[in-house]
Amino acid sequence: MNLNTLEFRSDNCGSAAPEIIEALVRANQGCAVGYGADALTTELNSKLSEVFETKLRVFPIPTGTGANALALAATGTPFGAVYCSPEAHINTSECNAVGFFGSGLKVSPIEGTHGKVCPIFLENNLNSAGFGQAHKSQPVALNLVQATDLGAVYSTDEITHLSALAHARKLTVHMDGARFANALAHLACSPAEMTWKAGVDILSLGVTKNGGLLSDAIVVFNPDIANNIDFHLRRGGMIWSKMRFASAQILAYVENDLWLRLARQSNAAAQQLAQGIQLIPGARLIAPVQANELFVEMSATALDRLANQGVLFYRRGPELARFVCRWDTTTKEVEQLLTLIQTGLST
Amino acid sequence: MNLNTLEFRSDNCGSAAPEIIEALVRANQGCAVGYGADALTTELNSKLSEVFETKLRVFPIPTGTGANALALAATGTPFGAVYCSPEAHINTSECNAVGFFGSGLKVSPIEGTHGKVCPIFLENNLNSAGFGQAHKSQPVALNLVQATDLGAVYSTDEITHLSALAHARKLTVHMDGARFANALAHLACSPAEMTWKAGVDILSLGVTKNGGLLSDAIVVFNPDIANNIDFHLRRGGMIWSKMRFASAQILAYVENDLWLRLARQSNAAAQQLAQGIQLIPGARLIAPVQANELFVEMSATALDRLANQGVLFYRRGPELARFVCRWDTTTKEVEQLLTLIQTGLST
Amino acid sequence: MNLNTLEFRSDNCGSAAPEIIEALVRANQGCAVGYGADALTTELNSKLSEVFETKLRVFPIPTGTGANALALAATGTPFGAVYCSPEAHINTSECNAVGFFGSGLKVSPIEGTHGKVCPIFLENNLNSAGFGQAHKSQPVALNLVQATDLGAVYSTDEITHLSALAHARKLTVHMDGARFANALAHLACSPAEMTWKAGVDILSLGVTKNGGLLSDAIVVFNPDIANNIDFHLRRGGMIWSKMRFASAQILAYVENDLWLRLARQSNAAAQQLAQGIQLIPGARLIAPVQANELFVEMSATALDRLANQGVLFYRRGPELARFVCRWDTTTKEVEQLLTLIQTGLST
Amino acid sequence: MNLNTLEFRSDNCGSAAPEIIEALVRANQGCAVGYGADALTTELNSKLSEVFETKLRVFPIPTGTGANALALAATGTPFGAVYCSPEAHINTSECNAVGFFGSGLKVSPIEGTHGKVCPIFLENNLNSAGFGQAHKSQPVALNLVQATDLGAVYSTDEITHLSALAHARKLTVHMDGARFANALAHLACSPAEMTWKAGVDILSLGVTKNGGLLSDAIVVFNPDIANNIDFHLRRGGMIWSKMRFASAQILAYVENDLWLRLARQSNAAAQQLAQGIQLIPGARLIAPVQANELFVEMSATALDRLANQGVLFYRRGPELARFVCRWDTTTKEVEQLLTLIQTGLST
Repeated sequence: MNLNTLEFRSDNCGSAAPEIIEALVRANQGCAVGYGADALTTELNSKLSEVFETKLRVFPIPTGTGANALALAATGTPFGAVYCSPEAHINTSECNAVGFFGSGLKVSPIEGTHGKVCPIFLENNLNSAGFGQAHKSQPVALNLVQATDLGAVYSTDEITHLSALAHARKLTVHMDGARFANALAHLACSPAEMTWKAGVDILSLGVTKNGGLLSDAIVVFNPDIANNIDFHLRRGGMIWSKMRFASAQILAYVENDLWLRLARQSNAAAQQLAQGIQLIPGARLIAPVQANELFVEMSATALDRLANQGVLFYRRGPELARFVCRWDTTTKEVEQLLTLIQTGLST
Repeated sequence: MNLNTLEFRSDNCGSAAPEIIEALVRANQGCAVGYGADALTTELNSKLSEVFETKLRVFPIPTGTGANALALAATGTPFGAVYCSPEAHINTSECNAVGFFGSGLKVSPIEGTHGKVCPIFLENNLNSAGFGQAHKSQPVALNLVQATDLGAVYSTDEITHLSALAHARKLTVHMDGARFANALAHLACSPAEMTWKAGVDILSLGVTKNGGLLSDAIVVFNPDIANNIDFHLRRGGMIWSKMRFASAQILAYVENDLWLRLARQSNAAAQQLAQGIQLIPGARLIAPVQANELFVEMSATALDRLANQGVLFYRRGPELARFVCRWDTTTKEVEQLLTLIQTGLST
Repeated sequence: MNLNTLEFRSDNCGSAAPEIIEALVRANQGCAVGYGADALTTELNSKLSEVFETKLRVFPIPTGTGANALALAATGTPFGAVYCSPEAHINTSECNAVGFFGSGLKVSPIEGTHGKVCPIFLENNLNSAGFGQAHKSQPVALNLVQATDLGAVYSTDEITHLSALAHARKLTVHMDGARFANALAHLACSPAEMTWKAGVDILSLGVTKNGGLLSDAIVVFNPDIANNIDFHLRRGGMIWSKMRFASAQILAYVENDLWLRLARQSNAAAQQLAQGIQLIPGARLIAPVQANELFVEMSATALDRLANQGVLFYRRGPELARFVCRWDTTTKEVEQLLTLIQTGLST
Repeated sequence: MNLNTLEFRSDNCGSAAPEIIEALVRANQGCAVGYGADALTTELNSKLSEVFETKLRVFPIPTGTGANALALAATGTPFGAVYCSPEAHINTSECNAVGFFGSGLKVSPIEGTHGKVCPIFLENNLNSAGFGQAHKSQPVALNLVQATDLGAVYSTDEITHLSALAHARKLTVHMDGARFANALAHLACSPAEMTWKAGVDILSLGVTKNGGLLSDAIVVFNPDIANNIDFHLRRGGMIWSKMRFASAQILAYVENDLWLRLARQSNAAAQQLAQGIQLIPGARLIAPVQANELFVEMSATALDRLANQGVLFYRRGPELARFVCRWDTTTKEVEQLLTLIQTGLST
């Protein structure tokens, strides 16, 4: 990193956790059969089943976009629709991978606050969706992003409620957990409570943004869905032959609570930043900070100044900035950013 | 590996080269911007441009299947056809990823020997293809597997001839280089001579099978094709956010001729095995051994015996076995296999 | 039709115009070569070129959904987005045919009034669309429904303005003309003025709803788009072998201004109905009546009564009804409906 | 038709049967609800259920290509493979509509004679298909063309045998009946015996080539398949709103055995032609003439002469011609053709 810049663009700009790198190095022992039939991948399935307290299937997959699109394609039909928040990553930032992998599967945004799907609007949409009418894309899945794309976290009650609405109409519930560990650390509940116990059928388990490097995973709680997923993955070019090197990353990620430790670090940095911002006149958080992302409104001039001084961040509007804390964001970096924001706004 | 087994199933059962692992570990320094805008990916583009002696574009990609399917989808139209050998990996072993990524792109096998496309049959097919007739899938690409799926290697003259036939009808020439370095080591020509100088427009550069771990690459020589490929990759879920860790692998792979050194090792093991087999009555090679794969006919009983004695290999027919040598296959392993074959056949 | 019912569900419930049936019968003379190379299809291309005052290409096609989806698929790329009104037929009623034919092409609604795309929101969306960013579906087309799905009609100035915004960013302008003749009759301008002179590149020309029976058409003004459309049609199963029978329908439709005469009839019936409704307390039109569709708010009780008395219409909400006038809707039918509405509301 | 030409290109060059035209004209009475909920379509379902002696579902559809591709897409999975003859229309002449509608469904030709699938090769392929292996497209359907694309007809025993092989591996059996009535007339069996009683699950019922004009049909015997087909049709743009005009054609087609009478006429013309050709030295039939198509080998010079003298036919090779007899081909036309062939060969 340039010494004169402060990196707040994304958690995927961060480094990989040493434990994960070491596990990957360790995996390089002799031969192993390909395509997921190796011992480490078997161990991964056992380990995650233990962590999630249920028998599940894990499919390591290169990217979160692939995980989301394939999970939804595997659960849906080509004439289906997927409900999600308007801010959902699948709707805004994945070049319509869902439509592609789903062969025309439609992404249907439903309003809500802070990146969440509103249960009332969901119910209204389900009631007027036209089930059984050939003119209408048939609702087949509900996508919940945990933590949301505006940095908030669904409570387990909220997930349970939304899942029940979805299941009542036979929709599959998919959780986009690109920042799953951040949400888990915030809620301080068990992985099971935040997923299948609350009605989640299939999960995109994010690893990369929280200290991983080259692999995320699809975790399937509902065995009906798991049957065909291997074929979807294979024709999607998503099954590594040397799978052991991916499985090793995910194993290390959940072992000894590493994922929670890393997530607590980025969450803490975000809290430090949020608390500082709340004291600065002219800066305003537009959503609760419950994970590691902050969305801050301030004047365009102030944002220009920040950018000119070497702060790296994404602008979501002329007066809206997103700052993301990484697991390796330091207290000092946060302090420097707060100082620059304060100076910029008081000039 | 089980000490009582001999691994000859696939080169993707092998370990990763230490140089590549080390490069990956080295890449884990501080922050880097995501999705391929990082310094290592820039360096990779320069390095491969130097290695191939032309300005090219490199796109690291998780799997060879993804590389093949996306390269062909990006070059073709959804109503197109791709000519290939009947034995071509895209036709036999990728769950029709080409048809999926190409939205109905058709794979059209053309006969030949030893896994090669025969130029005469290619010309016949082009002449009767029905260019401009809406009833007919329009030929848009020629797929050449180098080394072939039967272990042979196209000469540069053969590639040049086939490419010229394809280009005369405006087809794109795609090389599936899952075992590119093995072929290169065999021909002892330059990478440029085996690709763009012979008419290749786009290359799937295999890394995984020859000492890599989690990344292969698409290499684009024809700039017209490169323009849209980012979008195809993105909606295909094929762009890692932490791209530096993929680029580092491929950089290490070509630096200091590592790829050639590794390929020479597996090629040499295959030669040792081939020479041994030629001396054994009852065993017969069905194709020239020019890379690291051998296809050997012997009696079903003899093959059953091998399997029972712990030799791991794939059977391509009741009396046909494939043996693949890895970069880390030892001379001793080859000797053990030869002994077991000889014993099995003479019993 | 049941004598005790009043049919106001859709213009596609109406009969075919006798002139069109007669033309179809007349087309049944001897042999004719298939797939559109026949004399009637050639004549259709000439005739429509004359009617639209420009050299164009016509492709008869079975349905309006097929016309819309194929027109957009042919103009777009698989990673593209199509802007349209939220009420647009492609967004609400075609089971995401655009996403299917477009291999993942995304439908992106843009707010507006009365079923129109608002130019200000269009411009905002274009400015923040992220052209060139792989994360974002790339805007490739603008879909304008003329008349709109709420019964309003774009003025030629509105079309010109929206098209200019679209063309400035290289989007193709597609007009969904399911009720093209109704809009044309309302504006009393020339077909050329309402299409290519105002910037339209490709048109779905509706015939079925306005007295046709089994064929609509794609009309291409921009020759660049026409080149590949035959292949898209063929692999979409959309080219009749006995094309002459489709072309005959469309020829008869535009000859001697039949399309305008039919449209004027349904427009006049709609005007009669609209004027009557405006005099009835408790009933309210929610959009200007400029073609042959009316959207009327009244109490749920009143709507229930109408339905119970044999009025056939579609409910778009608990208190919202759509009434559609056909070319063969009679003055008496309108009067009967008005009486029933009045009675129902005054009870 | 040009008086100086003889039309033998295709049965789709022929006229429509007057009975079908008259039925279409008769259907134009008052209003009818759209999209297949009308009385004529209901009657069509009853009538065909009676004709085929089983409760079935009929879906009128504009083209045979659409019927084939949708029938296969509805029965298959996107990672599936469809077995067919190399000469099958879906493999040679439909611009890979199967791959498109099936979202990557693969067409896998299996050798045989006279356009038939050989049961031995089918069994071999099923045995080595790799069921359950993600690398392999999973066989999901068997396509039988009746009559075949080389003019032969499967016996009911042959269909029964092939269907049993397919069903043993859970494949759906699809019959492409573009020339169904010609085959039925040849076998002189019942429609039930040639379809579901012999194991056929879903049928593309050709109407157009045998006196129809604008509609063919999908006939579903297996109710499991019928459930989703409406959605596939709708998003495929294949459901006419004024469906009654399509249903009327198909009703008239099967009423009073019209389809058999028409097919007997073209079959008889083909027999007359075949018998004549067998007497002409230098001309040779390459397949049995059991329906209305003939494939004749003669010298290139003789074929050139025929073409120059105004005989319209398609050339399938330098020395191979296809002649097709229509329901309205006259005895005199056949005699004229025979004379021209004889003269051409004896010059």
